[in-house]
Amino acid sequence: MPVDFTPTPADQLLPIPGVKLGITEAGVRKANRKDLVVISLDPACAVGGVFTTNRFCAAPVRICQDHLGKGAQVRALVINTGNANAGTGEEGHSRALAVCDALASQMGVSREQILPFSTGVILEPLPHDRVIAGLPNALANLQPDHWADAALGIMTTDTVPKAKSAQTTIQGKSISVTGISKGSGMIHPNMATMLGYLATDAAIAPSLMPELTRRLADASFNRITVDGDTSTNDSFIVIATGKAGNAPIRSLEEQDGKQLYEVLESVSRWLAQAIVRDGEGATKFMTIEVEQATSTEEARRIADAIAHSPLVKTAFYASDPNLGRILAAIGYAGVNDLNTDLLDLYLDDVHVATRGGRHPDYREEMGQRVMKQSDIGIRVVLGRGKAKATVWTCDLSHDYVSINADYRS
Amino acid sequence: MPVDFTPTPADQLLPIPGVKLGITEAGVRKANRKDLVVISLDPACAVGGVFTTNRFCAAPVRICQDHLGKGAQVRALVINTGNANAGTGEEGHSRALAVCDALASQMGVSREQILPFSTGVILEPLPHDRVIAGLPNALANLQPDHWADAALGIMTTDTVPKAKSAQTTIQGKSISVTGISKGSGMIHPNMATMLGYLATDAAIAPSLMPELTRRLADASFNRITVDGDTSTNDSFIVIATGKAGNAPIRSLEEQDGKQLYEVLESVSRWLAQAIVRDGEGATKFMTIEVEQATSTEEARRIADAIAHSPLVKTAFYASDPNLGRILAAIGYAGVNDLNTDLLDLYLDDVHVATRGGRHPDYREEMGQRVMKQSDIGIRVVLGRGKAKATVWTCDLSHDYVSINADYRS
Repeated sequence: MPVDFTPTPADQLLPIPGVKLGITEAGVRKANRKDLVVISLDPACAVGGVFTTNRFCAAPVRICQDHLGKGAQVRALVINTGNANAGTGEEGHSRALAVCDALASQMGVSREQILPFSTGVILEPLPHDRVIAGLPNALANLQPDHWADAALGIMTTDTVPKAKSAQTTIQGKSISVTGISKGSGMIHPNMATMLGYLATDAAIAPSLMPELTRRLADASFNRITVDGDTSTNDSFIVIATGKAGNAPIRSLEEQDGKQLYEVLESVSRWLAQAIVRDGEGATKFMTIEVEQATSTEEARRIADAIAHSPLVKTAFYASDPNLGRILAAIGYAGVNDLNTDLLDLYLDDVHVATRGGRHPDYREEMGQRVMKQSDIGIRVVLGRGKAKATVWTCDLSHDYVSINADYRS
Repeated sequence: MPVDFTPTPADQLLPIPGVKLGITEAGVRKANRKDLVVISLDPACAVGGVFTTNRFCAAPVRICQDHLGKGAQVRALVINTGNANAGTGEEGHSRALAVCDALASQMGVSREQILPFSTGVILEPLPHDRVIAGLPNALANLQPDHWADAALGIMTTDTVPKAKSAQTTIQGKSISVTGISKGSGMIHPNMATMLGYLATDAAIAPSLMPELTRRLADASFNRITVDGDTSTNDSFIVIATGKAGNAPIRSLEEQDGKQLYEVLESVSRWLAQAIVRDGEGATKFMTIEVEQATSTEEARRIADAIAHSPLVKTAFYASDPNLGRILAAIGYAGVNDLNTDLLDLYLDDVHVATRGGRHPDYREEMGQRVMKQSDIGIRVVLGRGKAKATVWTCDLSHDYVSINADYRS
């Protein structure tokens, strides 16, 4: 059960002109489940992508980077679940390319116009024959209003599909944005999330896509962590089809660019937070804010230390205000000249610690009250500078252990 | 239940001439449990200590560093459980000093000759009055053969006391070594362990103590991790009473020094590994060796990433050879120029992965067989250089969550 999460009804997901989605059962790992998604794009879409920094990144991640790097006109994305095609060496690379070739041939485009994605078990050979055999069915299923099915089709240990839409008006043109994401465990994106796809019919200059995609990732998927494990397959893709008819957005600093960025960011954040709310075994959603740091990196390092601490996460699971564990995590975060005597800690509106020690007015009942909530804010004020960072995470429960001890069984 | 652990019978613990131990119930946090230990030393002992690098280090840690830094002749160690006296600001510092003053006054020595230690809950005021009230009973209980009781008296979430002795002969003199340790959760020592005390009757030049203590810590307590949480109170103390009558050891490079170091290291390792074997909820003991790295730091970083990964730890708990999770952890360890195509992975004698992909001869049954053991070796060969590192860790089980969700209740 995800934490404080309201799924978006399928009929509230906006089609994006220029984008069609086809879903099928390819039997990659298990029978009778939708595990293959093709997203086809009309010609002349602008596409940006950011990917995992994991050195064991999967074969499809390397191929996506290669194809986007060559500036190819992307015409389709192909996504399988059930197998990550990571830790599979040269053979895995060949198999991912074979999937691209098969789809390119059926669509009458070139290999470089296909972006492949995989998610699932690592270190097992991709059954690419099954993926390829499923492609005709996926293509036959292509429709503009299949976003809800696609969100289902990319799930692994997710308990709910994650999809969201938003609208705005730019230059008098109605602009739609729809995105989907998946992820529940092995979540500590570093440059991107497990899998996230965001599409808009706004026209955006292709030259702006790398910066736009990076900024959106940094404001959303790069701020979440479930278990601190950075996946081998994280990918976040932004698609702009241009069908809305606006003059192409060329800067995020001008009024139109700002307005479009805001709506794209709001959907990206929703999708990223949905991954944490559906984090494996999650019962609490925590927002960790670290303020008054000397740099964003320093603030982020402390926020990550708190978010990754198994002791902090189990205390939140138990609604036990054992808040010294937060101080311990701050202390070992690697900020070597940290003066703990300047530090304040808040749990929502409760002032827990001041100048490195317990606040004189703090009483355990006050912490207990906040800890029992399902949505909790942790705020650390360092008293060192002006930088800040925010991380969203969840607790560590018995169900996390159960899910990951049984995942492949 | 600790993993493959045989407690040392009390009658096999060797008294160390010059050291006496007194234990009592001070009621620091709970009634009817031994929670206060005093270790008194004869004059002229050489003492070394290493301590946590956590910036939120506890008041007693700061005081130990101060007293040892001043070169004071240490005459007693005083250890309470039930309260860490960390995250307690200036008031915590004053209270720890008050305990030192009370003990110094009763022993007729100065404040600087006392080393204080605390372990337990963080962010709560130390009930120093109760500690002080317990001191006369602890002093009345001082005996050379109370090592087993002392090992019991320093436990918190430990399920077994940890104590070990060894003997050797140097310059025709019989030399005894006895040590105790505690720790089970919040274990990722960085410079030391939760609490470890090692004593020998060998004579060692005081000037050699810092180097000796550091080397012993690096070879033992600094190689263990349970949950990746570096405690606020880690302390490791080495005591040499000189009562054996050997000419003082002045170098670890000469024959006598080497021989003494070896026996001290073997006891230190035993005590450190005992903490992992008794790790909160542990059901498996894992030795992670990373070889052919370009530096020890690089090897250690990869070993730590594997040891800290909740996904790796839960897979070992389940005896599930989902070994791609190990590759993922290696990939995000932060070695940015790692060439995964040169990498080999072994599980004990089973060759799991070669050149970054699954070994052609590897079959899941082979991994399964090793995963079912309680003592497992993970060996990563990077193919980059000559440096290596070893880390000992345990799995992540349901009991870890239960223990930490209930710790204070």
